[in-house]
Amino acid sequence: MNYDLIILGSGSAGLTASIYASRYKIKHLVIGKLLGGTATEAFKVENWPGTPGIAGTELLKKFQEHAQNLGAEIIVSEVVKIEKQNGGFKVTCHDGKNYLAKTLILALGTSRRKLDVPGEAEFLGKGVSYCATCDGPLYKDKIVGVVGGGNSAVTSAIMLSKYASQVYLFVREATMIAEPAWQEQAKKNPKIKILSETNIKEILGKDKVLSANIDKPVDDKTNLKLNGLFVEIGAVPAGALCRGLGVQLDEKGFIKIANNGVTNITGVFAAGDVTSGSGGFAQIITACAEGAVASYSVFKFLKGLNG
Amino acid sequence: MNYDLIILGSGSAGLTASIYASRYKIKHLVIGKLLGGTATEAFKVENWPGTPGIAGTELLKKFQEHAQNLGAEIIVSEVVKIEKQNGGFKVTCHDGKNYLAKTLILALGTSRRKLDVPGEAEFLGKGVSYCATCDGPLYKDKIVGVVGGGNSAVTSAIMLSKYASQVYLFVREATMIAEPAWQEQAKKNPKIKILSETNIKEILGKDKVLSANIDKPVDDKTNLKLNGLFVEIGAVPAGALCRGLGVQLDEKGFIKIANNGVTNITGVFAAGDVTSGSGGFAQIITACAEGAVASYSVFKFLKGLNG
Repeated sequence: MNYDLIILGSGSAGLTASIYASRYKIKHLVIGKLLGGTATEAFKVENWPGTPGIAGTELLKKFQEHAQNLGAEIIVSEVVKIEKQNGGFKVTCHDGKNYLAKTLILALGTSRRKLDVPGEAEFLGKGVSYCATCDGPLYKDKIVGVVGGGNSAVTSAIMLSKYASQVYLFVREATMIAEPAWQEQAKKNPKIKILSETNIKEILGKDKVLSANIDKPVDDKTNLKLNGLFVEIGAVPAGALCRGLGVQLDEKGFIKIANNGVTNITGVFAAGDVTSGSGGFAQIITACAEGAVASYSVFKFLKGLNG
Repeated sequence: MNYDLIILGSGSAGLTASIYASRYKIKHLVIGKLLGGTATEAFKVENWPGTPGIAGTELLKKFQEHAQNLGAEIIVSEVVKIEKQNGGFKVTCHDGKNYLAKTLILALGTSRRKLDVPGEAEFLGKGVSYCATCDGPLYKDKIVGVVGGGNSAVTSAIMLSKYASQVYLFVREATMIAEPAWQEQAKKNPKIKILSETNIKEILGKDKVLSANIDKPVDDKTNLKLNGLFVEIGAVPAGALCRGLGVQLDEKGFIKIANNGVTNITGVFAAGDVTSGSGGFAQIITACAEGAVASYSVFKFLKGLNG
């Protein structure tokens, strides 16, 4: 075996798992597609204890540096296959390279939930986006829409209002589930118009997005002029990759873990947004804690203390 | 009801619960005996993601400021009684004042485990201590002992070596359970002598500690000259206070919680070292995460979203 542990994922959970693994002197490798993970898309993190108002990229950069200063070996690559081999595990990356380890921590995170309406796939990158922090600055003085009612949607609307001339927030339900502190900011913002119980039916355009059809009229019109549409309606766990291992998922596709990060497969641990842990509350702080717990469980497992 | 929520405890879990409660606009009060909790006793925190090498007091001061900047009302006082009243809860403090709330988060932490040997109680504060960070500087050029083999014991020994002329580390087992990174530092330290499988039998002295009897000779002697003895053998959950509420505890006295912070009593949530959560891995990061999760569950409970 090349490694005692491979951590799959380089977001909040994976990097904290690495910090703890280094402290426990576990020889490990981190493989992640996106260094920093989805938290890098947060334009402002207000609830990381002790460091309010930090950008997601900046906070995750600090995690990365912390991990690397402790000696973390990090590979930025996409894992395409995970197999059991000789009592351990073989992880194959997109480029065909593979790595062996005695244990795994699955910290694969989530991908964005799709709206699943006509035009969404066609205009991806041409007005349709899943990341306001990444693409927001492209919409200076433009009209944009955000779909969703959670923290991601509301914070995206606030962030977009710094660039766009008008931001529509399409909320499927009558009320939003975002933190009331964020809701208040959005409601006070003169550029943001909240459209509750309103759904996008179709995204229209030519080379790029020009408008959207909606199911509840705004100013008597069901076709709304839009230059961009940001879809922020939640996340789908990246658990599919683990199916071959026989890792048990819950009905929504999240990896089932005990509160010590153990999965149903011996030697396989999991942490972060991809799991059913922390009551399903996907936060940077909960992902980090689950990463720490998983590494502690790996340490005990490797020492034969339990399993 | 004066409050929607009272958070009992002002350590990592309690302060993070307050940060999240403020973000959720939950009218709440924090009551804690020790502002910052037991983490303030950590002379150096190496595994708080993104901020390596910070003193426990400094990190918890940042949490406290974060909570207070969001409007947290914090009372430093000892809670002596918690009762159910009118579908809510009544919390009585040492000074006789009481406060009413719809929900509680129990983040009461732990107290130090006692060695339970003759002389321990007699010489408390006269050489016997449970906090190296607090009392270490008093032992400049003195001979001190630390009892324990976990992170707290080993980091205390390292910290004490900055002051004392000699530090004995009494480890009950043959091996230590502290992070190997800390063990390595202790082993390399010329002032620290690790005595494995060695127990303190009795603490002796006059007005203050002068020596200890041990069960395995050092340089052929079972009486060892000591000016101070630091007991770092783990923690006892402060769950006793909650017994009157009917909150279920595990066999070790930790409050049993589901992974969303819910206890067996409606309206009562728990977080941090006092709980059975996070696989029993008591870290600042796990306490914070549990605090965040508990506040999110309180938010949903108050909105009638679930219980």
